[in-house]
Amino acid sequence: MSPLPAAVCPPVRVLMGPGPSDIHPRVLRAMSANTVGHLDPYYLRVMDEMQAMLRTLFRTENRMTMAISATGSAGMEATVVNLIEPGDSMIVCKNGVFGMRMADVAERAGAQVTCVERPWGEVFTPGDLKDALAKAKPKVVGIVMAETSTGAWQPLEEIATLVHDAGALLLVDAVTSLGGVPVEVDAWGIDAIYSGTQKCLSCPPGLAPVSFNDRALDVVMNRKTKVQSWYLDVTMLANYWGSDRVYHHTAPINMTYGLHEALRVILEEGLEACFARHALNHQALKAGLSAMGIGFAAQEGHQLPMLNAVTVPEGIDDAAVRGGLLNNFGIEIGAGLGAFKGKVWRIGLMGHASRANNVLLLLGALDELLAEQGHKFDSGAGVAAASQAYRAAT
Amino acid sequence: MSPLPAAVCPPVRVLMGPGPSDIHPRVLRAMSANTVGHLDPYYLRVMDEMQAMLRTLFRTENRMTMAISATGSAGMEATVVNLIEPGDSMIVCKNGVFGMRMADVAERAGAQVTCVERPWGEVFTPGDLKDALAKAKPKVVGIVMAETSTGAWQPLEEIATLVHDAGALLLVDAVTSLGGVPVEVDAWGIDAIYSGTQKCLSCPPGLAPVSFNDRALDVVMNRKTKVQSWYLDVTMLANYWGSDRVYHHTAPINMTYGLHEALRVILEEGLEACFARHALNHQALKAGLSAMGIGFAAQEGHQLPMLNAVTVPEGIDDAAVRGGLLNNFGIEIGAGLGAFKGKVWRIGLMGHASRANNVLLLLGALDELLAEQGHKFDSGAGVAAASQAYRAAT
Repeated sequence: MSPLPAAVCPPVRVLMGPGPSDIHPRVLRAMSANTVGHLDPYYLRVMDEMQAMLRTLFRTENRMTMAISATGSAGMEATVVNLIEPGDSMIVCKNGVFGMRMADVAERAGAQVTCVERPWGEVFTPGDLKDALAKAKPKVVGIVMAETSTGAWQPLEEIATLVHDAGALLLVDAVTSLGGVPVEVDAWGIDAIYSGTQKCLSCPPGLAPVSFNDRALDVVMNRKTKVQSWYLDVTMLANYWGSDRVYHHTAPINMTYGLHEALRVILEEGLEACFARHALNHQALKAGLSAMGIGFAAQEGHQLPMLNAVTVPEGIDDAAVRGGLLNNFGIEIGAGLGAFKGKVWRIGLMGHASRANNVLLLLGALDELLAEQGHKFDSGAGVAAASQAYRAAT
Repeated sequence: MSPLPAAVCPPVRVLMGPGPSDIHPRVLRAMSANTVGHLDPYYLRVMDEMQAMLRTLFRTENRMTMAISATGSAGMEATVVNLIEPGDSMIVCKNGVFGMRMADVAERAGAQVTCVERPWGEVFTPGDLKDALAKAKPKVVGIVMAETSTGAWQPLEEIATLVHDAGALLLVDAVTSLGGVPVEVDAWGIDAIYSGTQKCLSCPPGLAPVSFNDRALDVVMNRKTKVQSWYLDVTMLANYWGSDRVYHHTAPINMTYGLHEALRVILEEGLEACFARHALNHQALKAGLSAMGIGFAAQEGHQLPMLNAVTVPEGIDDAAVRGGLLNNFGIEIGAGLGAFKGKVWRIGLMGHASRANNVLLLLGALDELLAEQGHKFDSGAGVAAASQAYRAAT
């Protein structure tokens, strides 16, 4: 073909959407390290180290903790198709896009799906699940810990107990939560969990960290039918990620380098410090937006620090503001999805993107764009309130 | 956790195994470019350009030409699960590991699989398929163009005609062939095809280029059942890769940068020149190995230029030679798989790894290691024969 396209030379963005988030520069450098083979002794060591760091992040001792060679949504599919056999009963908790997606994935795996629903932006209480558990007698209950479409932060501890009392396995979507808020796989008794690299891990999309505890693994290893996906079949992946190192597929070597470095960055900071940073920047953003008359879409007391779904003020053109942010300031924020389309902005403060610089920059940029559109607010009040929140914290 | 693992710092390897192959330095640099969002106007342009370049490589006008967000094996799964519905009849041609894998993938998708078999290292003639086509009346016939486990190069043109005459779709595995030998999707009438990035494209593993023609797409779009994999569902992927750009999953942005640059490197050289280079380096390697008493595992006349499966000489310790190559010279070659375990070495001359430097280096290193093991041959004859082959070509 002629002429050839120019070499990739991307514009510089501030990634404050629902992911990918700002990538840590060390991660990008690691990704360009020279490639070795997927069975090279050096690569096997990198895999071991990555597994150990993922266990620390998931707060688990689970042997079967690894990264699926695809993006976060494939992590969802991997956990579902390994646990579910055709005809199995599964409950899916639906209060946003990713619960809907999980129900779809489960149905495609042949599950008899019972959906328990809450309005978008709200979370589930154990009471919401009781009847369905008694009626559906599920093998698996799937729930989203951080609903990226609504910014709702789902508590899991009590629900885990209830699910286990009903004899079911708890499957958790931690795509957006991992690395930003505590995810206690062992302490809460989460049986299977998946995440993605492009949210609070500050790594480009391309891998899906997953973990199965022995109870879940036992279910997988004793299936009557083969897992419907060859690529995601944990009974085979276990032989590559385990001590046998049997070839399954060719792992995405350089993505693994990136995730390895991303995990090192997080663990250098320390998990508690990292969670505190996410919480503080969220509080500052919230104070700033509140001073500008912008409220949150998710239920008070259950708002995620890394995914701020906020309501587009009355009379303001959603797309014009997002376009202004992107074109005038290089800032990406997310549009609303599904029920929230046109009504909500999704502001990510994830991983390396969760810093005061980004909060102040966004508030300043929004100040200008909202004033242009005639929004009634006290110009400058947003940055002042955020600044006050930061000062109060030190 | 403490202490943290050290930062990734891989040993320098010469990747002459079955893939990943040597990565072009420009590709590694492209992969570390700053990340943008998966719906960023700039990224959408990169996707468009990548699709156009993939069409040139596949020699097709197929609209539905794109990259699956996972490695080559997921490309196999993507094409199979989109075309097959439970109960559909499918013929799989099996003469190595990847035909076996395709049969497994197809069974998991619910296909009634008929396997047509040839001994490892041999290829199929149209005659091998006639009876099975009449009997199985398949919806899809799957065949591997470049069997990475045996080095056999499968001709496709006549088989394509036969398959179409029988009213079936032809599905082709081009993981190892794409970019190294002609792959004529439109001229041969291939209905669906998949490849990987880590072979002749000189890009790290992580994406699977695929292409469906309108006949295949029509079958996918008119399915009675949902595609069993949500992640690989072309009916949804079409809305992201098509003009609508509807969010499906978060694409692996930086892998796309890498593939974009890898395709630019190939098209700058030109496809014909690239194929000629692969052919010449194969001939030189073959001449050299022959002079050292090492023969090929695949049928004469059907040996792949980029994947040289050669027989381990009598009395030589397979693992010791591969270990010596890796530890003394940093050279990775592949072991035999399945029926060829311990009997065959797989020497890749793929993409950027297909160059005289690698051929001469490998022959020199093998000379030393085989002499150490008491192999009877004329030391130096291998390099001399290869050098002669290069001189003859200029």
